[in-house]
Amino acid sequence: MHHMPKEMQSCIDACLRCYQTCLEMAMTHCLHKGGKHIAPEHFRLMMACAEMCRTSAHFMLLQSPHHKHTCRECAEICEECAKDCERLGDMDECVQACRACAESCRMMSA
Amino acid sequence: MHHMPKEMQSCIDACLRCYQTCLEMAMTHCLHKGGKHIAPEHFRLMMACAEMCRTSAHFMLLQSPHHKHTCRECAEICEECAKDCERLGDMDECVQACRACAESCRMMSA
Amino acid sequence: MHHMPKEMQSCIDACLRCYQTCLEMAMTHCLHKGGKHIAPEHFRLMMACAEMCRTSAHFMLLQSPHHKHTCRECAEICEECAKDCERLGDMDECVQACRACAESCRMMSA
Amino acid sequence: MHHMPKEMQSCIDACLRCYQTCLEMAMTHCLHKGGKHIAPEHFRLMMACAEMCRTSAHFMLLQSPHHKHTCRECAEICEECAKDCERLGDMDECVQACRACAESCRMMSA
Repeated sequence: MHHMPKEMQSCIDACLRCYQTCLEMAMTHCLHKGGKHIAPEHFRLMMACAEMCRTSAHFMLLQSPHHKHTCRECAEICEECAKDCERLGDMDECVQACRACAESCRMMSA
Repeated sequence: MHHMPKEMQSCIDACLRCYQTCLEMAMTHCLHKGGKHIAPEHFRLMMACAEMCRTSAHFMLLQSPHHKHTCRECAEICEECAKDCERLGDMDECVQACRACAESCRMMSA
Repeated sequence: MHHMPKEMQSCIDACLRCYQTCLEMAMTHCLHKGGKHIAPEHFRLMMACAEMCRTSAHFMLLQSPHHKHTCRECAEICEECAKDCERLGDMDECVQACRACAESCRMMSA
Repeated sequence: MHHMPKEMQSCIDACLRCYQTCLEMAMTHCLHKGGKHIAPEHFRLMMACAEMCRTSAHFMLLQSPHHKHTCRECAEICEECAKDCERLGDMDECVQACRACAESCRMMSA
């Protein structure tokens, strides 16, 4: 990217990685497994996490100073999503992407 | 909408109205007028406001409890955008849409 | 909206209405009912329809001449979603929103 | 990604790379340079290209068979954006991201 600071580019990468993982896991793994994987609370959290990651990346690309707030909220949702995926037990890829994104967003929101 | 509470539907309407107004005004009025209308700070704020409104509406439609946080951030950005559009002076439609959305989002985030 | 032609504003309204209906029905009705309502093919079609409607509205707001192409694709997905919702049998609100959007998008893509 | 075919993951990567490049270049390079860089036709094309790339990636992640159509439209917009950026002359990064995305999307839409 053009003049993007290195830390911000890392955070955009983490957000877009987590967005992809959550959306794809929801649309394949969760829909195919059924049961607790499509319990409304879990499924909506997966979709909310994907959307918030997409939005946080967008705010950094827009160079908006409000990216600090969207990153803070993104860190919170990602942490919650990581815990819920850990509880379900066969979603390691999602847990890792959410944890990595939460950590990166926490740094950007400081 | 299906089972959507009336207050939430009103807030979704206000968000999608503000999203439309900010995006369309930026792409027509601001690009055509030039000058202070395309100063990076103003223009990025218009784009950030449009994106945050779109995201807040999405969170309410997702039935995510995190809509309280996205609505709080949306109210803050809309208020800032309203002030900046008021300062520029020929963007009444945008000022009104941002104010209405900020008020509705503040109520939803309480 | 500012200088938006009347027919285009009607199409934006139809797209944003269909986006809301598909996303909210998927996140409430479909997740709660389960069974055929969360069959991957149906659920993904609902999500694809919501996203395409959101994107078509965005292209019209951007004043992009490519809105003719996004509207054409939107009409096709909406028609397919209407048929699939009709087949399931208790999704009248979604059928109607998809049909109305398909008709409006077909006119815009001509 | 989970079970994503290699070619599709490459196309998602190209789409998200082009989305980032177009949005960031518009919000920094174009707004700062002014002149022909913020001519409505050029600027709207940059924004339309960013949005279409974001949407095409989303359709592949949704596992929607309609990704063939969104990829076809994405290839067309990216090619047009590449040409317009080439004409302006100091936007090599954008030209390259658009060309790479257009080529990848053309393969996915075949």
